[in-house]
Amino acid sequence: MGLDSFFRPQSVAVIGASRNPRKPGHVIFRNFVENGYRGKVFAVNKNADQILGKRCYASVAAVKEPVELAVIAIAAAGVPQALEACGKAGVKAAIVVSGGFREVGNNGLEDKVVGVARKHGIRLVGPNCLGIFDAHSKVDTLFNPRYKLERPVEGGISFISQSGAVMSVVLDWMSMKGYRGGKFISYGNAADVNEADLLRYLADDQHTKVVCMYIEGVADGRRFFTVAKEAARKKPVVVLKGGITAAGSRAVSSHTGSLAGAAEVYKAAFRQAGVIEAEDIEQLFDFARVLTTQPQPKGRRVQIITDGGGFGILTADWLARLGMEPAVMSKAGLARIRMVSPAHVVTGSVIDLTGDADVERYSAAIDAALDDAGVDILVIIALFQLPALTSDIVEVVAEANRLRKKPIIFIAAGGRFTEVLKKSLENEGVPTFSYPERAAEAAKALYRYRHGG
Amino acid sequence: MGLDSFFRPQSVAVIGASRNPRKPGHVIFRNFVENGYRGKVFAVNKNADQILGKRCYASVAAVKEPVELAVIAIAAAGVPQALEACGKAGVKAAIVVSGGFREVGNNGLEDKVVGVARKHGIRLVGPNCLGIFDAHSKVDTLFNPRYKLERPVEGGISFISQSGAVMSVVLDWMSMKGYRGGKFISYGNAADVNEADLLRYLADDQHTKVVCMYIEGVADGRRFFTVAKEAARKKPVVVLKGGITAAGSRAVSSHTGSLAGAAEVYKAAFRQAGVIEAEDIEQLFDFARVLTTQPQPKGRRVQIITDGGGFGILTADWLARLGMEPAVMSKAGLARIRMVSPAHVVTGSVIDLTGDADVERYSAAIDAALDDAGVDILVIIALFQLPALTSDIVEVVAEANRLRKKPIIFIAAGGRFTEVLKKSLENEGVPTFSYPERAAEAAKALYRYRHGG
Repeated sequence: MGLDSFFRPQSVAVIGASRNPRKPGHVIFRNFVENGYRGKVFAVNKNADQILGKRCYASVAAVKEPVELAVIAIAAAGVPQALEACGKAGVKAAIVVSGGFREVGNNGLEDKVVGVARKHGIRLVGPNCLGIFDAHSKVDTLFNPRYKLERPVEGGISFISQSGAVMSVVLDWMSMKGYRGGKFISYGNAADVNEADLLRYLADDQHTKVVCMYIEGVADGRRFFTVAKEAARKKPVVVLKGGITAAGSRAVSSHTGSLAGAAEVYKAAFRQAGVIEAEDIEQLFDFARVLTTQPQPKGRRVQIITDGGGFGILTADWLARLGMEPAVMSKAGLARIRMVSPAHVVTGSVIDLTGDADVERYSAAIDAALDDAGVDILVIIALFQLPALTSDIVEVVAEANRLRKKPIIFIAAGGRFTEVLKKSLENEGVPTFSYPERAAEAAKALYRYRHGG
Repeated sequence: MGLDSFFRPQSVAVIGASRNPRKPGHVIFRNFVENGYRGKVFAVNKNADQILGKRCYASVAAVKEPVELAVIAIAAAGVPQALEACGKAGVKAAIVVSGGFREVGNNGLEDKVVGVARKHGIRLVGPNCLGIFDAHSKVDTLFNPRYKLERPVEGGISFISQSGAVMSVVLDWMSMKGYRGGKFISYGNAADVNEADLLRYLADDQHTKVVCMYIEGVADGRRFFTVAKEAARKKPVVVLKGGITAAGSRAVSSHTGSLAGAAEVYKAAFRQAGVIEAEDIEQLFDFARVLTTQPQPKGRRVQIITDGGGFGILTADWLARLGMEPAVMSKAGLARIRMVSPAHVVTGSVIDLTGDADVERYSAAIDAALDDAGVDILVIIALFQLPALTSDIVEVVAEANRLRKKPIIFIAAGGRFTEVLKKSLENEGVPTFSYPERAAEAAKALYRYRHGG
């Protein structure tokens, strides 16, 4: 059955659904009722008649309709019995968000839960996890209040996280930035479903264009890297490894009890498997955004178009440091830009449209660079603080991006006005960056994915 | 006279003040009238009677009151004559924002302007620049509309920028983030006042706690590094150098016409002068924020306190990669934390208060770490997505920061709720970061400023 029952179940029972808005069981039930999930939802709690105006059942058995997925949010001690009831009711998959198992030394209780699941053929995510957020199906077992943790709009970036905290931060941050998301899984103790199972599933998931992972250690290295190699053949897999130093590794062992392993061993294995390694959390999603939205570049020659000379220089510096090359446009191409530009515009490998650049000048420069055989990748810098540049630049860049002729990477930094316009561009599938360094790293990752090196 | 007339003039004349809201002369005049500048302001424009309800003068001569600073925002050709009138009226300093001089090959016109200024003993910033924003005195010659470029609240970080675009981005971004600012200068063609003059002035400026610089090249290297060495003895000087690669350097030469020079030469000279070099724009201000607000650490031992294990691990990794050391707290200190914590809290070199951490637990951990002889620097990670953590954590961290016992660096990442709380902390003088990498780099910069290495 794969793991479909976790991500697109026909029906869900929330076991431990509560009327108390501060309880996880309340928040989770509300997620399914109010946020666009299209299947049936059942509240299970023997101490309540109604929750959010919906009937509450004393047990899964009382539902009398098929339940595909159970989300279990009750005290640890009661989980085996609840899961037993799920098994009898024909439940296919269960997400146990409750903590109080192996992570606090209750290995016996966790083994018991696994035993019950195996007996009934139930697949298990957790225990001790945030569970799943699926932006497409709206399966959402996060018990963080929505004002503290917003959810991103649907897109192609999926994320497997060994840390619930890292996943919750990422979801909230992606929402604010307008980054699009697919399936997000915090798998906690991995008593049954682990990172390798999830990676294999996402490799074949049509909604997922790029798989991101945060891992501290893996239970079965051989299997993980076999799966990773297969997955990386199908779509980009980008990994951030926590615990790469001695200090970090000690923290891993007290965090999840897994062995972090030597950084070099992981690094070599990632490379061999064709997995892209990211240096930090932002970079994980920087790489994912360019790989999800942009076509593959023919080469490494980057044309920079800017209205701020300093930003152009810093971007040229970073691209050069990372081994990318400046593009050399044809005379005919540069002439197209000069035709609509005043004399002080600089048309070199950094095209500096200067501080009085308007949308027309940008439009000419972008069109010329897209058509020019000397350009593989465009980095467009548009500083919105400058008086002459109107917000129409968003439409011009979005339109160029829709053509999918060459990869486009966009840089703009500043305050609230800038962030609003960048969010519009993200919504149109244009990857946006604040500063040259991260944009240059993303351009390089895009180039390397196709060409290696 | 130094450069005081630029930063706290008793009176200002805006030459080229305009009724048209899209003209630089209008925006600049409005800045002085509406945003808290306390001196006298005069509009000069022979084609208008009133601007913003204030009398408009046909010339500086017509003002008949002392004018200390003139801001000149008229077409290049008229600047020498306008400056001549300023000289006769006893003006001490002039900021020429107008472009159309050396940067477009009009060297003769620029020389003429300098000649007039010298004759009358007028100091000159510009031409071809954004000029000055002083958060304390409210001198503000930026002609970017305020909805596109917000201004930061007053603080101790000053910034000298060879690029107007970089400066405008930085001001806008600092405003959004709640970073505090002092004096900001875009000096354009540096026909008279240059980066060395400005650095020397800021070194003695009481409002300025840290000097940040963005430079592409310097006119007189020997003088600059002599001044830099003196300045760095008085307060931290942090520099970002643009044009460090061949590609970036070519872009510099078409941007400001200055020679970028070999990266290694600059790097060595910065080190010798005691100037801190930043890798990118964000880092420039990351370093400035910790150096402005935090006491100097006794050593390099960092205690991490977190509610998210993954974030703790990534932070430990980055600190270790950068040569910092994990703190080892005393048994008594750790016992103080365990006294108010459940059994699953981990009290190692990463204190993981875990996902159900509340403010009381944080409070105990922070107090214990501040008192512990084994701790030199605190990195506090508080992920606001977690349900049990209320916004009171802001007050607890701000209070600990007020004690100034040890440096505190704060990490929280996420969406809008998180950003609002981080802005409150910035306002209280706590340097905040989104992700481990930049926080660790800032901790290292703080350590190195005192101890070297």
